[in-house]
Amino acid sequence: MSKQRAASRARAVRAGAGPSVVRVGLLGLGTVGAGVAEILVRHHRLIAERSGVDLQLTRAFVRHPKKRRPGAAAGVPITTDASAVIDADDVDIVCELMGGMTPATELMTAALERGRTVVTANKAVLAKHGPRLMALAATSGGELFFEAAVAGGLPIIRTLREGLAADRVGRVMGILNGTTNFILGRMERGDAYAAALAEAQALGFAEADPTLDVSGRDAADKLCILLQLAFGVSVLPEAVLTEGITDLTPEILADARELGYRVKLLATGERTDGARAGVAATVLPTFVPAGHALSTVDGAFNAVAVESDALGLTFYQGKGAGGLPTGSAVLSDLIDAARGIRGGLRRQGGWLAQDGAPKLVPPGTVRGAFYLRLLVKDRPGVLAAVTRVLARHGVSLATVLQRERGEVVGARVPVIMMTHETTQGAMRKAAREIERLGALQGHVQLIRILQEAP
Amino acid sequence: MSKQRAASRARAVRAGAGPSVVRVGLLGLGTVGAGVAEILVRHHRLIAERSGVDLQLTRAFVRHPKKRRPGAAAGVPITTDASAVIDADDVDIVCELMGGMTPATELMTAALERGRTVVTANKAVLAKHGPRLMALAATSGGELFFEAAVAGGLPIIRTLREGLAADRVGRVMGILNGTTNFILGRMERGDAYAAALAEAQALGFAEADPTLDVSGRDAADKLCILLQLAFGVSVLPEAVLTEGITDLTPEILADARELGYRVKLLATGERTDGARAGVAATVLPTFVPAGHALSTVDGAFNAVAVESDALGLTFYQGKGAGGLPTGSAVLSDLIDAARGIRGGLRRQGGWLAQDGAPKLVPPGTVRGAFYLRLLVKDRPGVLAAVTRVLARHGVSLATVLQRERGEVVGARVPVIMMTHETTQGAMRKAAREIERLGALQGHVQLIRILQEAP
Repeated sequence: MSKQRAASRARAVRAGAGPSVVRVGLLGLGTVGAGVAEILVRHHRLIAERSGVDLQLTRAFVRHPKKRRPGAAAGVPITTDASAVIDADDVDIVCELMGGMTPATELMTAALERGRTVVTANKAVLAKHGPRLMALAATSGGELFFEAAVAGGLPIIRTLREGLAADRVGRVMGILNGTTNFILGRMERGDAYAAALAEAQALGFAEADPTLDVSGRDAADKLCILLQLAFGVSVLPEAVLTEGITDLTPEILADARELGYRVKLLATGERTDGARAGVAATVLPTFVPAGHALSTVDGAFNAVAVESDALGLTFYQGKGAGGLPTGSAVLSDLIDAARGIRGGLRRQGGWLAQDGAPKLVPPGTVRGAFYLRLLVKDRPGVLAAVTRVLARHGVSLATVLQRERGEVVGARVPVIMMTHETTQGAMRKAAREIERLGALQGHVQLIRILQEAP
Repeated sequence: MSKQRAASRARAVRAGAGPSVVRVGLLGLGTVGAGVAEILVRHHRLIAERSGVDLQLTRAFVRHPKKRRPGAAAGVPITTDASAVIDADDVDIVCELMGGMTPATELMTAALERGRTVVTANKAVLAKHGPRLMALAATSGGELFFEAAVAGGLPIIRTLREGLAADRVGRVMGILNGTTNFILGRMERGDAYAAALAEAQALGFAEADPTLDVSGRDAADKLCILLQLAFGVSVLPEAVLTEGITDLTPEILADARELGYRVKLLATGERTDGARAGVAATVLPTFVPAGHALSTVDGAFNAVAVESDALGLTFYQGKGAGGLPTGSAVLSDLIDAARGIRGGLRRQGGWLAQDGAPKLVPPGTVRGAFYLRLLVKDRPGVLAAVTRVLARHGVSLATVLQRERGEVVGARVPVIMMTHETTQGAMRKAAREIERLGALQGHVQLIRILQEAP
């Protein structure tokens, strides 16, 4: 559909189809799609009353028409021809809820090329193709909404697009993956990583193949979307310094508790100053001080903390995944999109890189303080050798604890250190060098410590 | 202006005045008004880019035209005739930022009668006249936005109006007054109430007359607005069981810490079941468990926790007052309002009482567990007499601590008790009866304990 046709369709909707009818076509009727169908059908009157928009679900594209669909999804007219949704005259909003890269990417591209308004929950497509899709929307007259793509149960996308429209973000930090947060909670009670993962799988919080979650890659996808909105920085997830939770142990989590912290997998984007002015982006297990709001986030919840010039700290916590939180985020986008369609408005959403948008700084230059855990041979001189290596790399120590706690392993004794601020690069080089001293069992375990805003 | 005229004006705006120009008239150019003017002028291009709306500040009504106004406010055309704003053809949104009841109530009423879109930050007017103003908007074709009226730095109004549009709220709890939260923080460090208040005043966090804040009445105003949106319940602040922080002591706050809690002034609306099915509304100093997100809210911050069927717990924290957070909330309303105006849409906002909206239950029937602190005469039999009174009122005890901690006052010894769940009514009756035993110094100090959702 051409730009002109899209505009004339928008006018026709305004003029003809009742006071505020806006028609939705779904791509996908899986868990999320069926949940959205359920909400749109069951709460139709309440939504119309509260939002002023009469959202009507006109059709849905599915790949497997014979699949049994319970509830409201059973009554939706389905088609196996995607163009019957993205080209239809009786669809005002295309709502993509299939997940995965293909054919979701191609269908969203086609819909935006036709000047369509698209609502999606697809974080993987946005992390990889977001900038291209947003640019496409800007030239074709389409619009793209994606509240459900990051932490569905909390309105972080809208907040960054609008609430902070006139503000300058200094740091955004999030617990963006509920699966790993659930696993960390179990490990705090003493479970080993493998046992905690098995329980998460048994409860349906983790997939049979949990790699995307536990490696931190899912969080990195979502962080890339936030980096775009918060800083105008356009990066691929591969460029984010990412470390998962697979190397964590109950001992590390117990140390954290004892030192007044909790370990969370934090996705962080923050401005850096000085010679390396830019934005640092990391997904790392992190010691979070017990008094910080992020430390209170338990179970499969998500949370985001934003530090900005005008607002100071704002903090949002809610369920990140599951049909209802995601469905609720999609609904809020549908209402917002409907208001825009009927007003003939279109927003750029702050996604397009601003003039002078900062650049990502190399991971090695990212600053932070660290916790180190080493199992060292219990003989004179080892600690001296370790601290010499740290000093040579400019890493200074705030705390050193030699632990006994019945935890001596063979002839090895655990030593815990906390450093002052240094760089990721210096810290990691020093750790590798300490490992080469030949006085350790296993690796140096290294966790970043969250430093609160001054 | 008639409904017809308002509609034709909306059409004219759509057709004529450029792609997305929406014109704003301010009522008031005080701290908040000047802050909004500053944002609209300085960030004009960025806002247009991000939101798709070209917000133009066309004029402002002030009562004192000779007052010096710094910054962008200096350049705004001012008038001392309010009708020059609310009747003007070059104003699409009337933005009320005067504060106080009069003439703000009358001006908002007049604007809504003319079918205008009104954005306001005025919690006092909304708590008292909100239902009438919303009903007026619904019949006149106007629309009313008020994100800045409750906890400006966090998007709680929009979330309740939209994000939760298809959800059912079970409980909403908030730290809605930053002044009292700041004072409580100082008292935790050992300051007496009066000293903490004096410091808050010196730092500009508290007014010369702090009554509205410290009595809990400011929080009760804001709670009434939340009760409308969360439950469709329409009540006046006088009907909310309200207790301020003036009777709290550093000893109570120290007890809380020791028992694993922090004391916060919580505004709470929650559904009750059984024979007393309805909504309970309270503003009370409350023991909040240390692991709960609300316990991490420090200084002059606000926070709201919402528990709902679909989303479970969602939590929002941010600055509640001050020019920038309030200005940012007003801006977000202006953008939302502009999108509605250009689309010819109007929402009822969930404010109008729904069919079958629950009723407020009598304060005495509100359930909760309690902390009690008594200074008792250190002689045999007193504790037995106290516990007999409690038992007679059906109040059972979870914990009893007789404190020494160098805190013996005369011949009095502090006794701390924590009860199991009971009702406000039974607890308060028992406390009055205990005081009549003649074995106490001063009153029974009574603080509600927050019980987490099951």
